[in-house]
Amino acid sequence: MIDPDDLRSHQAAVFAARRARLGARFSGEALVPAGLPFPKNYPANPFPFRASSHFLYLVGLPLPGAQLVLRGDDTTLYVDAPAPDDELWHGPTPSLDDLARVTGLRVAPLEAFAPVSPEAAVLWPQGERARSVAAGLLRRSMDAFDATDADLALQDAIIMLRLQHDDAAIVELRRAAEATVAAHRAGMAATRVGVTEHAIRAAMEGELMRRGMSTSYGSIVSVRGEVLHNHSHAGTTREGDLLLADVGAETSLGFAGDVTRTWPVNGQFDGAQRALYEVVLAAQKEAIARCTVGTRYRDVHLAACRAIAEGLVALGILRGDVDELVADGVHATFFPHGIGHLLGLDVHDMEDLGDRAGYAPGRTRSAQFGLGYLRLDRDLQPGMAVTIEPGFYAVPAILRDPERQRAEKGRVDREVLAKFASVRGIRIEDDVLITNAGPEVLTAALPKEAAAIEGLVGSE
Amino acid sequence: MIDPDDLRSHQAAVFAARRARLGARFSGEALVPAGLPFPKNYPANPFPFRASSHFLYLVGLPLPGAQLVLRGDDTTLYVDAPAPDDELWHGPTPSLDDLARVTGLRVAPLEAFAPVSPEAAVLWPQGERARSVAAGLLRRSMDAFDATDADLALQDAIIMLRLQHDDAAIVELRRAAEATVAAHRAGMAATRVGVTEHAIRAAMEGELMRRGMSTSYGSIVSVRGEVLHNHSHAGTTREGDLLLADVGAETSLGFAGDVTRTWPVNGQFDGAQRALYEVVLAAQKEAIARCTVGTRYRDVHLAACRAIAEGLVALGILRGDVDELVADGVHATFFPHGIGHLLGLDVHDMEDLGDRAGYAPGRTRSAQFGLGYLRLDRDLQPGMAVTIEPGFYAVPAILRDPERQRAEKGRVDREVLAKFASVRGIRIEDDVLITNAGPEVLTAALPKEAAAIEGLVGSE
Repeated sequence: MIDPDDLRSHQAAVFAARRARLGARFSGEALVPAGLPFPKNYPANPFPFRASSHFLYLVGLPLPGAQLVLRGDDTTLYVDAPAPDDELWHGPTPSLDDLARVTGLRVAPLEAFAPVSPEAAVLWPQGERARSVAAGLLRRSMDAFDATDADLALQDAIIMLRLQHDDAAIVELRRAAEATVAAHRAGMAATRVGVTEHAIRAAMEGELMRRGMSTSYGSIVSVRGEVLHNHSHAGTTREGDLLLADVGAETSLGFAGDVTRTWPVNGQFDGAQRALYEVVLAAQKEAIARCTVGTRYRDVHLAACRAIAEGLVALGILRGDVDELVADGVHATFFPHGIGHLLGLDVHDMEDLGDRAGYAPGRTRSAQFGLGYLRLDRDLQPGMAVTIEPGFYAVPAILRDPERQRAEKGRVDREVLAKFASVRGIRIEDDVLITNAGPEVLTAALPKEAAAIEGLVGSE
Repeated sequence: MIDPDDLRSHQAAVFAARRARLGARFSGEALVPAGLPFPKNYPANPFPFRASSHFLYLVGLPLPGAQLVLRGDDTTLYVDAPAPDDELWHGPTPSLDDLARVTGLRVAPLEAFAPVSPEAAVLWPQGERARSVAAGLLRRSMDAFDATDADLALQDAIIMLRLQHDDAAIVELRRAAEATVAAHRAGMAATRVGVTEHAIRAAMEGELMRRGMSTSYGSIVSVRGEVLHNHSHAGTTREGDLLLADVGAETSLGFAGDVTRTWPVNGQFDGAQRALYEVVLAAQKEAIARCTVGTRYRDVHLAACRAIAEGLVALGILRGDVDELVADGVHATFFPHGIGHLLGLDVHDMEDLGDRAGYAPGRTRSAQFGLGYLRLDRDLQPGMAVTIEPGFYAVPAILRDPERQRAEKGRVDREVLAKFASVRGIRIEDDVLITNAGPEVLTAALPKEAAAIEGLVGSE
């Protein structure tokens, strides 16, 4: 059901302008399904409904089962008409006329869906059931979820729009950033030795929930910072631990924040932690400074790799020439992932379309360990939003990997590394908007200097 | 990925005993899929994985994609074998041998899945993708999600087991109840005039998250208590409002709590609110007292209806003979839903199997407004857990419904009702375990007397 507040604050002109811009880039007939709720343990107990990002971009309302049909000037929103007893169980529900008035769209019940042409393109929603429904409307066979040429052309059109955020999207990204900053402050304040990761996560997500927001991805809140995709929160902080928190807000319109901070649970980095924290922070600042219009994002990544390698050479953990270390991917033993990704309606924006969104035509993933995990390789343009998130991790599975050791050719000093055993993982991540005036850090209100972080831990 | 803590605390004997009891009731070959995660906006950003309740009941570990095959004494758990780079991204992952050691089951990789017989039965998981996978393993056609006779026999066997909770299940229900009680206390403490529903919900769900639990259903936290399925939290409490909170915990093993309280946001019921609160409370106590072994649950429902009708007659809102009012369903204008439902691994336990779980063979839903919404009509047995949740609601859509007014035959006094306009909705719900010694209220630690409630509101 639509929250009455979503209707009251709906800005029809924003979405009409986006649909018009899409129409200018794609003249064919297009179907954009909102998707359907997923059943948690039975259909009447679903996960919270999260509409398709493409649908949210073009319509702005999370209408389960709705179908947007774009046919040149004839744009129609097909929706599930309210059932007679909806009002009993769900309270006053907007009528089709209400929706038409608020959105400025022609609104019709799903039963009245008018067949689309065999050449119509689709932006597939998530979920087999929603895809089956869309396939039925398109009169495509049920297993034909592969993209047609028309689908790809539609994908390219929406990618070009969503790559460069309009003013309304930037307002939402700022809202997400503000809430995300508040969540991290709450997490730092709630941290001390002997509390559970669950409790710190609750403090952080509670701050989002209080604002009527949810999370844009599964939160990482862990003293095991070296586990990159760690969604367990069963640990308890112990003296000397670092806590790594990667938590981001999702606004009611679906836009994402994505921030990581790493802080000492006792409020004081030890010498090894401080030294490596400064290496990661320097790499992050270096990378952010390079987020200028026209810069190839892969070069931002490589600059961060170089800064990490430089820092690790200075500490004696790596040996050798910095450019060679980066060219050979030796830094990736400690910084295996990419410097960041697109940010927008998805935390990895448009990842549902694969590398078609993140990689410019003609560019493909590297086969090298590390660089191959980079999710974005486009030239930065005004209005793009990206994350910048270098890290340092001591991952046992990587450190003992024979293939890695061959690539390292003895340039990792394990004796020196052993002196940094109090560091399992450090990541520092901010959200950056590309503007003609240079990079704007949307999450700049959240401290990241070591001394400032120390002052916030346990302040609750 | 499996949380290491889930493995450490796994009680293999509990699940082995359940599988043995199932084998004693169903001798055929059976497939019990765990289900698959649902993609939120792209596959790598899923909703938290929630395994099928049947699988959790028999295996106790939330293993995405796993398939339990029961073939007499030959029971095998097929699981996704860890990929080589899983450890890099997800940290140490239990091996198949680890799982076998912990569960006592034969564990094999999914690639080694041995074909089942054409007569094998299945407990379908939620989600089309997981169902398609299971259909493939069963060599059934993709659209044959209808139950075969063997499926129905397997359903009946698991229903008979899950209807009467074993000791381990009761331990989990107590854990869920304890957390749910804490959440409601936190919600009352955080309530005052001028706070948002979002903030109260955050206080309640934060209490669950701190314990490493989640919610067993979408929380209702609303000053619009008359909207029965209200998942908007956009309101702000105003002087004179009641707040209705229907929030329940889900433990890590999947068991549910389900509690509702209704409290005055300023800490003081007004006269009309207090009078109707006492009517609902008396009905709840009356219904709980009747939760004894052998009692037909529909009679518990009807006793509550009678108590509501009596109370409303005493207040002058209803007129006429109480038994006639209940027989004609007039009370349902104000108490339209059922007195409760089964509680277990699902908040509406086994609702995935429809009324086959809730209704004893030969019993079917009433066609009458009100009684027709009753989800459970079995004779109560030791080990059953049910909710008891009467309510009073002033639902505009019901009050103005011409069909309702015909059923009422003038026995609702709308002038008197107008004096109770400060009440939109009141519900009082507890979780009750049926024992040979009588009903045990699992959530008894949460106050429900009006004076006690008043003392808790705003105490933070």
